[in-house]
Amino acid sequence: MRFTSEQRLDDGVLEREFTLGEIPGILWTPGSASAPAPLILLGHPGGLHRMYPRLAARARHCAADGFATATIELPGSGDRPRSAAAEQARAEVRRAVEAGQPVGEDTVDRLILPLVDTSVPEWRAALDALLALPGIGGPVGYSGGVIAIGIRLAVVEPRISAAVLFAGSFVPRALFEEARRVTIPLHVLLQWDDEGNDRQSALDLFDAFGSEEKTLNANMGGHTGVPRSAGDAAAGFFTRHLGARHTG
Amino acid sequence: MRFTSEQRLDDGVLEREFTLGEIPGILWTPGSASAPAPLILLGHPGGLHRMYPRLAARARHCAADGFATATIELPGSGDRPRSAAAEQARAEVRRAVEAGQPVGEDTVDRLILPLVDTSVPEWRAALDALLALPGIGGPVGYSGGVIAIGIRLAVVEPRISAAVLFAGSFVPRALFEEARRVTIPLHVLLQWDDEGNDRQSALDLFDAFGSEEKTLNANMGGHTGVPRSAGDAAAGFFTRHLGARHTG
Repeated sequence: MRFTSEQRLDDGVLEREFTLGEIPGILWTPGSASAPAPLILLGHPGGLHRMYPRLAARARHCAADGFATATIELPGSGDRPRSAAAEQARAEVRRAVEAGQPVGEDTVDRLILPLVDTSVPEWRAALDALLALPGIGGPVGYSGGVIAIGIRLAVVEPRISAAVLFAGSFVPRALFEEARRVTIPLHVLLQWDDEGNDRQSALDLFDAFGSEEKTLNANMGGHTGVPRSAGDAAAGFFTRHLGARHTG
Repeated sequence: MRFTSEQRLDDGVLEREFTLGEIPGILWTPGSASAPAPLILLGHPGGLHRMYPRLAARARHCAADGFATATIELPGSGDRPRSAAAEQARAEVRRAVEAGQPVGEDTVDRLILPLVDTSVPEWRAALDALLALPGIGGPVGYSGGVIAIGIRLAVVEPRISAAVLFAGSFVPRALFEEARRVTIPLHVLLQWDDEGNDRQSALDLFDAFGSEEKTLNANMGGHTGVPRSAGDAAAGFFTRHLGARHTG
């Protein structure tokens, strides 16, 4: 992990861009912290530059609660090389959505399964590097982004002890089986009228999770209309489970 | 409205029992309040004595957030006269549940519709009397209890401006139509594995509400297993919508 830039945001949060091999990423740490800060991995749909305003807003919110946050670019997004197969599947999804047709399971599998298989080891490698930094401690949470990545991470990565998942993207059927093996506390956000998301499938997925402690927080509106109160509820979930102290 | 007893609880909350005609009720007011306190009506399944520990706990939680709370006995519960028809329907429900059978729509109608028709005017009369007291102001919220009563109140009582509803009791089909006419902000609690509650029906009801702002907060566990975090989320909802000030 190599830091490539560093800036102090106006609320004191330290923002550092880094590369992990060929993968770009960003780390945010609270301005004042006496003890190592718990870490939240910020998921996203791909495209760090495009997503930066929303990621930075989430990072600042988390920093105010005492959390460090970090994210990395997804394979095939931003400046990272494209895969022909993924681009093909992505085009099929776009055509189906534009035509108001359901997206085929096979298309979802070809889009999401390779993404999960490639990105999850990358997030785990980032976690190795991040937890080795001074000022970053455990426990670790995962928040948002492609829900299939969150599911796989929750199953295979024992250092992640709580997750906020956003039921707003495609989930291959195979991941429903993995969901049954998730046991960490979950806080699942659902936008009730999400244009690109099948509500019943999201409810089935929530039901499938094996966690004894799981909350579904469903709100009105479309994909990007998550209300402020839902963000606050997710923040409260992390504070309960990762035990950050408020740094004011 | 006539007060019949008064006691100061150890956290300073003033608890007063009253009767409104033949109907017993309880009013809790925060220990210290400089301005008239917003009021939350506390719903329950009937039986004030049996429900007292849980009602008092909710009342103290609300008082800490600056709210006054009040409740009245339901018709046919506690010391109030029974109706033969309601007792008959209640016995049918019990037999169906014990036999693991679905409860017939006709039985639900005979149990719940007369309860709603009788109790809603009583809650409104209680509201008239409560809002005339010094130290009690608006806005008014309704919380929990028999959800069909909450739906009807939200439709017919313009002084209620936000409601926390518990999707945990029978809802006659006719009330689904009334649910479409509810427009106030709603926070709906659902216990995912509620023994006596049909989950799909609860989700359909949530979908039916006409409110632009509605949140479904679903948690693991049975009817009485609502986690503390869900109570806190409901309290946050009232604080946002009824604007109580913290009294410390």
